Amino acid sequence: MGGGFMFKKILIANRGEIALRIIHACKEMGIDSVMTYTDADKESLPCRKASETYNLGAPREYLNIEKIVFAAKKTGAEAIHPGYGFLAENPAFARACLDAGLVFIGPSPEVMKLMGDKVQAKETAQKAGVPVVPGSSGAVATIAEAEAIAAQMGYPLLIKASAGGGGRGMRLAQNVTDLSRAFMSACTEAQSCFGDSSVYLEKYITEPRHVEIQLLADNFGNVVFLGERDCSLQRRHQKILEEAPCPVLSVTTAQKMGDVAVRLAKQVGYRGVGTVEFLLDADEKFYFMEMNTRIQVEHPVTEMVTGVDIVKEQIRIAAGLPLSFQQHDIKIRGAAIECRINAEDPAQNFLPNPGTIRQYVPPAGFGVRVESAVFPGYTIPNLYDSMIAKLISWGRDRQEAVARMQRALNDFVIEGVKTTIPFHQMILQHQDFQSGRVTTNFLAKNQTDLSKGFSVSTNLPHQKIVRKYHLTVNDVVYELTIAGRIAGE
Amino acid sequence: MGGGFMFKKILIANRGEIALRIIHACKEMGIDSVMTYTDADKESLPCRKASETYNLGAPREYLNIEKIVFAAKKTGAEAIHPGYGFLAENPAFARACLDAGLVFIGPSPEVMKLMGDKVQAKETAQKAGVPVVPGSSGAVATIAEAEAIAAQMGYPLLIKASAGGGGRGMRLAQNVTDLSRAFMSACTEAQSCFGDSSVYLEKYITEPRHVEIQLLADNFGNVVFLGERDCSLQRRHQKILEEAPCPVLSVTTAQKMGDVAVRLAKQVGYRGVGTVEFLLDADEKFYFMEMNTRIQVEHPVTEMVTGVDIVKEQIRIAAGLPLSFQQHDIKIRGAAIECRINAEDPAQNFLPNPGTIRQYVPPAGFGVRVESAVFPGYTIPNLYDSMIAKLISWGRDRQEAVARMQRALNDFVIEGVKTTIPFHQMILQHQDFQSGRVTTNFLAKNQTDLSKGFSVSTNLPHQKIVRKYHLTVNDVVYELTIAGRIAGE
Repeated sequence: MGGGFMFKKILIANRGEIALRIIHACKEMGIDSVMTYTDADKESLPCRKASETYNLGAPREYLNIEKIVFAAKKTGAEAIHPGYGFLAENPAFARACLDAGLVFIGPSPEVMKLMGDKVQAKETAQKAGVPVVPGSSGAVATIAEAEAIAAQMGYPLLIKASAGGGGRGMRLAQNVTDLSRAFMSACTEAQSCFGDSSVYLEKYITEPRHVEIQLLADNFGNVVFLGERDCSLQRRHQKILEEAPCPVLSVTTAQKMGDVAVRLAKQVGYRGVGTVEFLLDADEKFYFMEMNTRIQVEHPVTEMVTGVDIVKEQIRIAAGLPLSFQQHDIKIRGAAIECRINAEDPAQNFLPNPGTIRQYVPPAGFGVRVESAVFPGYTIPNLYDSMIAKLISWGRDRQEAVARMQRALNDFVIEGVKTTIPFHQMILQHQDFQSGRVTTNFLAKNQTDLSKGFSVSTNLPHQKIVRKYHLTVNDVVYELTIAGRIAGE
Repeated sequence: MGGGFMFKKILIANRGEIALRIIHACKEMGIDSVMTYTDADKESLPCRKASETYNLGAPREYLNIEKIVFAAKKTGAEAIHPGYGFLAENPAFARACLDAGLVFIGPSPEVMKLMGDKVQAKETAQKAGVPVVPGSSGAVATIAEAEAIAAQMGYPLLIKASAGGGGRGMRLAQNVTDLSRAFMSACTEAQSCFGDSSVYLEKYITEPRHVEIQLLADNFGNVVFLGERDCSLQRRHQKILEEAPCPVLSVTTAQKMGDVAVRLAKQVGYRGVGTVEFLLDADEKFYFMEMNTRIQVEHPVTEMVTGVDIVKEQIRIAAGLPLSFQQHDIKIRGAAIECRINAEDPAQNFLPNPGTIRQYVPPAGFGVRVESAVFPGYTIPNLYDSMIAKLISWGRDRQEAVARMQRALNDFVIEGVKTTIPFHQMILQHQDFQSGRVTTNFLAKNQTDLSKGFSVSTNLPHQKIVRKYHLTVNDVVYELTIAGRIAGE
């Protein structure tokens, strides 16, 4: 990976598939890895694959800053990779690493704090000339103030928690009648979720797409974007399927979106990998939503179309090396899709379904990639996120990526726990998904279509097995029939 | 994959990983597959994954032309995919398919026959202006004739079976003293292996590389080459590791090699996928060796660097569709390496080691691809080829592909049978391999180096396991130590 300084040992302050992903990068770079784990994760695959392990104790200790910093010092690690979730976007953690003489693999605590505050981030974006959703300039303290701004801005609008994310502390107001109730409700939820009741107002973009730009920025002022991802397919504001490139974005707009994201990163002196999220409306106008200052769950789709190993590059940057490419080296090849496979029961309103995996045979072959830390016999703890695998397909074009994903979903054998695989099969064969017509409202919008029931074709005429699933999407129950020979049975 | 006619059902006249590879392509194209199998392969993965299955009976019946053609008619298949090996290059089989009104997925029987005869193929290549190794013009009947030609041509030279392949019926003569014995020996082996004692003479290229061009030719006169592969790493004339692109070929020579291969294909009216094999000498001069008229074991490395699904394209061509790309669409991205993992014991001179696989955890992650039809509990029959998996790595450059392959080899868990994984680990960390200095003599040449013993680094400082392997290469025993924590243990 070129000359210069490189870490000898990195501590991984995370678990599951992203921990394994980081271990893979470390191994290929000749770096030793220290895997932290809690008592709930003693038997985990990352623990088996890392160079060494460090027990943190109780299940919640992935959030114990002091203990993790101590573990790094104790094991002689020079840097800490936080993955995503847990402490990945906690400025106090980044600061604690620096204070202990460790490299935090991510941006500086100051930049993280700036971009982590939604109101400040939006102001910063606006200053950098990035288009933002029209809304209140800063937090709104009272209902009266909210009503005054709304009267100017117009409806529908969103009330959003300043410290929020994932749809928590967010309410929609269609008109002035809705506003006061929505405002109070948002404040209450913001307080309980984030310990901060402050909220702000934003114009509600009808049926937007969620499109985001992957950035890489080194210590030498080089900022490169690796194209965009479309993450419109969401369930209750949680991404469930992502793809690259966005199937509807014009080259001009994609370039413009990349340019403003780069400009924003330069403005704040960003360093590391990061993602600038935008809303894209039907007229191809886009608006800054937020910036994520970490590696994202969906980074593999970008890796598949650009060829860049984003985690390796992230480590290089943290080690003080320059980016190993320039903007003109980045060419998008083909299309990639990622399905997040969760241990949830689609028939029970996506209730988490932890348990022991009896059989596990991941799909394989050209253009198929699986990121997962589960294995046959593995018991999924009920304490953490329910995502157990990311299934990624690549194709020369989107049509091939879709066909390959369908084949891979059909080939995926996970027995012992209920998963969201049938839900993904349903989405993949939906007409609107196949033609790329997906907005963040996709699931709500297609209730009528979906309620007709889906039959997932496995191209198998000799139907040895017919399975019926009952899926609940936004509280409506659908019937899904999978007919054919199910892989591995 | 575009409009036009497409098969509804294809019969697969093969087994193992290539059968599964073809099933994947069929599924992604919406084509049903009929898996033929013998009594030895009843429990095979391709049988579980195909749309339907057809029992051929005794283990040798993969070679039964009549029965296979009958199976296709009986099951309503429109085409037969022969894979590689077995009947894939048997003109009588291709002819029988046509006579039965079936599409043979490959070239016409006439072209197959022409290119299958080494002497005719060489003459044809020469006529098409393809450089060939200087040698006798056609078969040489007597020792006297051989001596006369050798006197003109010079030594060292090879005596090769006209109907040969895989090094069978091939002898090296360093000088006139060697010649008569080598001649007789080659004739005898040619007779016993191929039922045809005819041999020809060829100048022996010292320490050549084996470089080959992947071709695709449709029914409309379009012939495209997908770059080259380097298959120099061989053990007893059997490829064991392949890569794309060739690490030493200049752009000019690569283009020239591709051009002459395309010219040859056009000259003979070739249709389907095919490979033109060349010897490359130290001065970057290249010579036609032979043409393979089928999909090759090593096709995945080309897929990884070009993005083209060669098996799908092969099926499209057979269905009468035009190629889905032109020459200028083909861009090589990065580098790919394939290791053939055989169930053989490197410590016992690569003795086949069939048996039951107890544990099987293939490596995964970005840039890692595994093509295999084995699974935990699978019993490898002792009747067929010993290859049980192909491990393919891709990287942005060769260095990354090598590092990734090393990581993947270390991560690969196969318990219950001995495999060639430690042998590949040894090759991957050899200085000459890492710098791309590999000729077909690599193993013989590095006996001294190899005998010093290798220590495969797994980047793991906490050595929980140390394993020693004894490897026999060309009858010399080497000691290989793998120290570290072995994946999955």
